Amino acid sequence: MNRETLLGKSRARIDAPAKVTGEAIYTADLKLPRMLYAKVLRSPHPHARILSIDVSKATSLKGVEAVITGRDAYGEKWGVFPYTQDHALIAIEKVRYIGEEVAAVAAETEEIAQEAIQLIDVRYEPLPAVFTIEEAMSEGAPKIHDQYERNLNIHVSINVGDVDKAFKEADVIVEDEVTSDGETYAMMEPYAVVAQYTTDGYLDVWVPNAGPHVRSKALSNLLKIPLNKVRIRHITIGGAFGGRSEVNPNDFVTCLLSIKARRPVKLVLSREETFIATRQVHDMKVWMKTGAKKDGTIIAKDYRAYYNGGAYSSTGPIATSIPFYVYEETYRLPNVRYNGYRVITNKCARGMFGHHGRAFQMGNTIQMDRIAEKLGLDPMDIRLKNALHSGDKTATGSVITSCGLSESIKTAASMSGWKEKRGKLPMYRGIGMGSLAIMCGFPMGFRSGSSAFIRMNESGQITVFTAIVDNGQGNENMAVTIAAETLGVPIGDVNLVNADTEMTEHDPGAYSQTATFVSGNAVMRAALDVKRQVLEIASSKLQVSIKDLDIQNGVVFATYDPSKNIKVANIAKIAMGMGNNIVGKGAYFPKISPDREWIKNPFGQMAGTYSFNTVVAEVEVDPETGVVKIVNVWEAQDCGNPINPKTIEGQIEGCVSRAGVGALQEELRWDKGLVLNANFLDYKMPLSIQQPSVTKKLITTNDPEGPFGAKEGALTCSMNVYKAVVSAVYDATGIWIREYPITPERILKALKRKKERGKQNHL
Amino acid sequence: MNRETLLGKSRARIDAPAKVTGEAIYTADLKLPRMLYAKVLRSPHPHARILSIDVSKATSLKGVEAVITGRDAYGEKWGVFPYTQDHALIAIEKVRYIGEEVAAVAAETEEIAQEAIQLIDVRYEPLPAVFTIEEAMSEGAPKIHDQYERNLNIHVSINVGDVDKAFKEADVIVEDEVTSDGETYAMMEPYAVVAQYTTDGYLDVWVPNAGPHVRSKALSNLLKIPLNKVRIRHITIGGAFGGRSEVNPNDFVTCLLSIKARRPVKLVLSREETFIATRQVHDMKVWMKTGAKKDGTIIAKDYRAYYNGGAYSSTGPIATSIPFYVYEETYRLPNVRYNGYRVITNKCARGMFGHHGRAFQMGNTIQMDRIAEKLGLDPMDIRLKNALHSGDKTATGSVITSCGLSESIKTAASMSGWKEKRGKLPMYRGIGMGSLAIMCGFPMGFRSGSSAFIRMNESGQITVFTAIVDNGQGNENMAVTIAAETLGVPIGDVNLVNADTEMTEHDPGAYSQTATFVSGNAVMRAALDVKRQVLEIASSKLQVSIKDLDIQNGVVFATYDPSKNIKVANIAKIAMGMGNNIVGKGAYFPKISPDREWIKNPFGQMAGTYSFNTVVAEVEVDPETGVVKIVNVWEAQDCGNPINPKTIEGQIEGCVSRAGVGALQEELRWDKGLVLNANFLDYKMPLSIQQPSVTKKLITTNDPEGPFGAKEGALTCSMNVYKAVVSAVYDATGIWIREYPITPERILKALKRKKERGKQNHL
Repeated sequence: MNRETLLGKSRARIDAPAKVTGEAIYTADLKLPRMLYAKVLRSPHPHARILSIDVSKATSLKGVEAVITGRDAYGEKWGVFPYTQDHALIAIEKVRYIGEEVAAVAAETEEIAQEAIQLIDVRYEPLPAVFTIEEAMSEGAPKIHDQYERNLNIHVSINVGDVDKAFKEADVIVEDEVTSDGETYAMMEPYAVVAQYTTDGYLDVWVPNAGPHVRSKALSNLLKIPLNKVRIRHITIGGAFGGRSEVNPNDFVTCLLSIKARRPVKLVLSREETFIATRQVHDMKVWMKTGAKKDGTIIAKDYRAYYNGGAYSSTGPIATSIPFYVYEETYRLPNVRYNGYRVITNKCARGMFGHHGRAFQMGNTIQMDRIAEKLGLDPMDIRLKNALHSGDKTATGSVITSCGLSESIKTAASMSGWKEKRGKLPMYRGIGMGSLAIMCGFPMGFRSGSSAFIRMNESGQITVFTAIVDNGQGNENMAVTIAAETLGVPIGDVNLVNADTEMTEHDPGAYSQTATFVSGNAVMRAALDVKRQVLEIASSKLQVSIKDLDIQNGVVFATYDPSKNIKVANIAKIAMGMGNNIVGKGAYFPKISPDREWIKNPFGQMAGTYSFNTVVAEVEVDPETGVVKIVNVWEAQDCGNPINPKTIEGQIEGCVSRAGVGALQEELRWDKGLVLNANFLDYKMPLSIQQPSVTKKLITTNDPEGPFGAKEGALTCSMNVYKAVVSAVYDATGIWIREYPITPERILKALKRKKERGKQNHL
Repeated sequence: MNRETLLGKSRARIDAPAKVTGEAIYTADLKLPRMLYAKVLRSPHPHARILSIDVSKATSLKGVEAVITGRDAYGEKWGVFPYTQDHALIAIEKVRYIGEEVAAVAAETEEIAQEAIQLIDVRYEPLPAVFTIEEAMSEGAPKIHDQYERNLNIHVSINVGDVDKAFKEADVIVEDEVTSDGETYAMMEPYAVVAQYTTDGYLDVWVPNAGPHVRSKALSNLLKIPLNKVRIRHITIGGAFGGRSEVNPNDFVTCLLSIKARRPVKLVLSREETFIATRQVHDMKVWMKTGAKKDGTIIAKDYRAYYNGGAYSSTGPIATSIPFYVYEETYRLPNVRYNGYRVITNKCARGMFGHHGRAFQMGNTIQMDRIAEKLGLDPMDIRLKNALHSGDKTATGSVITSCGLSESIKTAASMSGWKEKRGKLPMYRGIGMGSLAIMCGFPMGFRSGSSAFIRMNESGQITVFTAIVDNGQGNENMAVTIAAETLGVPIGDVNLVNADTEMTEHDPGAYSQTATFVSGNAVMRAALDVKRQVLEIASSKLQVSIKDLDIQNGVVFATYDPSKNIKVANIAKIAMGMGNNIVGKGAYFPKISPDREWIKNPFGQMAGTYSFNTVVAEVEVDPETGVVKIVNVWEAQDCGNPINPKTIEGQIEGCVSRAGVGALQEELRWDKGLVLNANFLDYKMPLSIQQPSVTKKLITTNDPEGPFGAKEGALTCSMNVYKAVVSAVYDATGIWIREYPITPERILKALKRKKERGKQNHL
């Protein structure tokens, strides 16, 4: 008898009921006994020296329980270890962006806290400020941090092969400069933090986050509290998209207030504060040059990418690198030079974003298509020509294992009728393609792996303990499904305790597609350990050797004779009666080169595996209004082996909305350091009525390392839909848009310019 | 180099800061988002048929979200499996005591819930009721449950040796009848429950309890919810004393309301409700006869013990047995007959009480002293004569392992100056002695054992997962200390996750002295598993064999050369980097006879070990007012090996207050089925100013099974202080009081009677 599998079958996510009914508790919903409410006083200046802060009036206001300024901090600064640490998380001496934390108050009510904030008297000496990459790097620009000459924060340099020589051998060369504006992450959930510090020195924190253990470690360092006394708690999270990857000032001030007041404190940011005072997405500018042989083989690439990092380092070393990596993981690059520069400006610090380096990826699409056009090749064929395959090495030395890239290109093309459509649709209608890979996990030193454990109750039901965090992707559902499938019990028999640093072993966090591949693997191994313990007892009870036993639907049976069987629930009771209760553990450490890191040695194995996706998008451009409408999207995702197809498909719909529709309209508008559209009326979020038809295909490559062959689900789709739209707009209009987002204004301007030049194509 | 130990050193309990500062959250303090407030409609009749219940007005009151009656229950009844299950937990057809749950309401505010309760129209047909053991067992008494003839609920029968023959061989025989009144447990925390049932079918419950897993199992059965969907959560608990051992109607109705309303519901009982509608302590009546040889050897014992069980079975089979067992575990009883009868009456159900069978133990003290007096022996010597020793067997077949009984008798006697005082103090001043044992754990089938697991973080700090519950005894502190001592890390490096059914493996609960002996043993074994994993890595790093390694203060070192060392924190990081994070597990199952149970087979090994205590008390009796004042208490406790002496000493102080001072004044006063003193003004709790001087001595016997030799801390002291006071009152007045508590009224009545009889002694 063979087991039935839970895998590959679409079912509703386990977290769905709570979210649909409103039962799910988000941080802002929390109410703790004796809880105080916090408000933050923020800098009105983009750059200024703090001359004095007088909190005396605020402190003496009735109902105020704590007031803090930079003086209450412990002198530690945040930044990714061991790189640049420059952010005190509450201003000391200087403010560096509008919205920066200057002081904070905890009071009995929000109203009192607000009143107290207004009573704090800060005297500033305004300083000259810089906002753009050009301003920041210009000669004589004001220095925002003493240690960064010309405001250059981070420089990532990668040089593989002989780029200059290769360009000399190229038959065709293209060169482009591409920019993308800053964005907000626009999570539906406004940022909120609840912190509770108790007399025994224990700090409890509820906060939307992408990796609880990474967050607790940062707070432990910053607050000088032992790691085991800082607990990030599980809480429902309304989105992350990379923007909740790291500790931020709001976490820090809320904790400080609770430490000072010795009471729980809640800080809920307004939507405007969430825009201006949590992480933002880097705006950037990339110069790039590509050389290819006549047959389409790309032989040389040269990049200079500039990232506007805002006022602080944040996760800069990673953000400045990953755009390059996701590209080198897609195509063969025998000769490549990448220089990534992150520049400090007087804007809010910019962090990781799931859509890695928009301008960078757009530029690559443009260049691939332009070379194809110059050589008379189909853009699809040039992608296939250069695509990496299983067994290939990336430029920086990562071996690709499972690889569905070529199949995804062919599948998306065939589903969309690519050959019949590209270059052949009526004017103002076009089709485009985008392909990209992504690493599942990345180097985090000894923290790159994940560990899980599982306990069994007397009914043979299990609880899985894993730090896996679910920001909306369905990671909780994934963990439960993997455990149920591995052990052979119904999904309803699997409980989950996750995303809580006290309850769980280390996990790198839901960054860079680690969840299924790394964390899911740990869960699978813990479940295998439980299964081994169950089968050992069953073997002795049934007198059947372990190799002839399996478990399905909570029953252990002999595979050669299912009538020989015993319930897992009975095994659990037997184990308890033997004083040998069933607890299993499992850990997974991806095959990452131990000495690979972000700046000094960006060579070796980057990640345990890579996943691949291709999107074809069809658009319609209205030449009167400049509005681009995405009509159809076809996508083919190599997710290794889909654990729950519905979850992946749901993510893909989200990617199309966010990265596709969003690519046409999302941008922060600035007046120097001031965000002008810090609300959901003026900041143009995609609407459901804008969602195109999406045809999805999951490609199964059965990754040799992934749990049940699974790897990343849909992030690559997010990047590719943007790329495909850019390419489709070109196909519809003959115009390469090199500034993003692709707003109607930019389309109209480009159409006008094209008309003026009287040319078919601005190559 | 030898390790320093944490054991035997007094230190403040880890739970102390939160309790001292008021940060500790008790159930009544909880506030959950969307929480409703419950009120219960209780029966005004001790016995009545319910003719109809009309909830229509209550249901339509604005703000009422759920109304339930017995019809909303699922037809399951509570009682210890596999014995009598007779309690529906919300009345169906009949009510059986004043205060029984008839209906309940959950509403937006407490006020609305109260108003709604008053709008429920219940029509009753009152039935004749019985309140005392005699009434209940009399011919023609109304039957409270159909299935109990003459209201006899439970009969425990034990017959060892040949009792009748032995009495014939006795040189001296005494016979007594002793009664004790009902009590309340009088926990400082009023009973409260918060339940939260969510759409995904998961029920969260916060409730003061003595065993979370036992409680969740009961609720799972009663509510027909799978075990893994019922979670008892950790919460600070303000006392148990046996009275929070089992599920009760307040838990059940709160859960039902939450299930119906699909919102969290909080029920907080008033002090009066806590008195009348949570468990009470059995009042009882015991006839007993003892026969001894001239040298003081007890050769025959015969008991008929009647327990007033109130309206339902509760944990009756256990409560009706244990008074006998704690006695048979103290003295050799070659021929003994015990008949325990539990009788149903129209009072609130009575449950377990840490002070097992007051009248029973008092009677034994009286008979021991009377025999000594008849034979001209010192009461101390007759105790030593009959005391069990290590290696002896109890009457029902339990082997005694470690045993400090004789030493405790001698120590208490010597500390108190017994030989100089007994029978030699001035009139109205007296000294008495009490000795008793208790089992550490008792038969609970496959649930008798405990399992723990431990995870380690990257700083080498650990979190212990155990279901151990702390009702005030210091169990949390015990678990943390055992883990720290076993592993060799500072106490501050040990976190605890406990008393939560989702997070922890099964544990029998803090019943019958299991916590240190059974649960502590599981924690120790889990810590040993962690230590093994740490030493394996250290051995390979240091190139020192495991047998030559130890850990102290978080550093692994070679015992022959401490300069060869490595921090546990570094081992943790190495393990993580190997993808082999450190998680340990351990379980302990006490050596209990697997087929021993409460009624059908009360023979074989009862528990894994036993602990012993002797108390000597000195009292002063005021012949004018009848007030007994306890002047001094000396106690000698065999706790195996004290883990934290301060904790045990704190418990001993509590025992003296509760069981000593309480023995003089605590009793429920009744008018038929109505409690007249259901408040702390009229119910006489011991006051701090009544506390006598207490001299404490801990006797170390190093139990071979106990963790670090430890066993029970102080419950035996509780029983013995009561016994010693009874004996001291006799020494002071020449009167044996046979009705408890020893109120001034009873003293005055007895003194008067004695005077009338003109006799020295009422033998």
